[in-house]
Amino acid sequence: MSEPAAKAVQDFYPDDFAHCYGCGRLNAHGLQLKTRWEGDETVARFTPRPFDIAVPGFVYGGLVASLIDCHAMGTAAAAADRAAGREVGDGPASRFVTAALRVDFLEPTPLGPVLEVRGRLKERTERKTVVEAWVSAEGRVTARAEVVAVPMPAGMALSESAGTVMPGASQGSERKTPPPPRS
Amino acid sequence: MSEPAAKAVQDFYPDDFAHCYGCGRLNAHGLQLKTRWEGDETVARFTPRPFDIAVPGFVYGGLVASLIDCHAMGTAAAAADRAAGREVGDGPASRFVTAALRVDFLEPTPLGPVLEVRGRLKERTERKTVVEAWVSAEGRVTARAEVVAVPMPAGMALSESAGTVMPGASQGSERKTPPPPRS
Repeated sequence: MSEPAAKAVQDFYPDDFAHCYGCGRLNAHGLQLKTRWEGDETVARFTPRPFDIAVPGFVYGGLVASLIDCHAMGTAAAAADRAAGREVGDGPASRFVTAALRVDFLEPTPLGPVLEVRGRLKERTERKTVVEAWVSAEGRVTARAEVVAVPMPAGMALSESAGTVMPGASQGSERKTPPPPRS
Repeated sequence: MSEPAAKAVQDFYPDDFAHCYGCGRLNAHGLQLKTRWEGDETVARFTPRPFDIAVPGFVYGGLVASLIDCHAMGTAAAAADRAAGREVGDGPASRFVTAALRVDFLEPTPLGPVLEVRGRLKERTERKTVVEAWVSAEGRVTARAEVVAVPMPAGMALSESAGTVMPGASQGSERKTPPPPRS
């Protein structure tokens, strides 16, 4: 490729929010998905492990849903940067959480090829961001999704008093007040 | 408990369909979820691992979606047994796959407690089964879902010629013809 790859959103989540199983760079057991802009779409790529199957030869739907989930949150964060006139990496990325996940599985996803997860911003307000996402294998779309992202509720931030900047976290959320974090 | 636990649906999936990451008894790396009847509801229980997190203290939404997905397929299989006048374990369980997964995340799911996943049959026809499912932690519902299950398409069955009985697999499916399985 002649152009360098764009920066990955997840590399700019503040450390305290970088432990997600699906996309946290600090979760050694996790999938470490990376979401980048490609024009007006976002893209992430992932090769499922041999055991990520529903039945032999086909990828587990729960993994497909998980990739979509994290990529949509990354897309919401990337869109928040752009809305603020920033590019990814100009500062810490906003951390969103999923309010609603809707996935249509169009056909079985074959195990083997790199999966491409794409996203596109559908709607963005202070309260919620709606992302369209789809997964393809060797150019064939196997799942389509719509995901509603909301700014992370304050109660999920373990270290607000520890100096971590959490853009967006103080905004209204559609969620109920969460239970206190476990120590 | 005075009554023995009901049999788990997943223990009766034919061997060739028992490798699912979420619920396959033959997937050594997987979650091995077990779905059982409790009256007219189904239930499965799972304790997330320390790394199954979105942020520290809270369970990863992709895991919540995965538990719901497998439990809904198990519920569809259990309901197929009942519709045929059988109980779980009277024969091989039908194997369904997910056509649509809709999850609303109501509040963060705390890491630590055993999660309870419940299911209820909403609609059942030859072509599709609709299952309502919800997840709770210590009695608090954190996610609600509706899942559409369809009989596994014939193309996903690697060993139809090897004598494995696949109830339901020959019925019409809403999916397109899948690509041939990878060897």
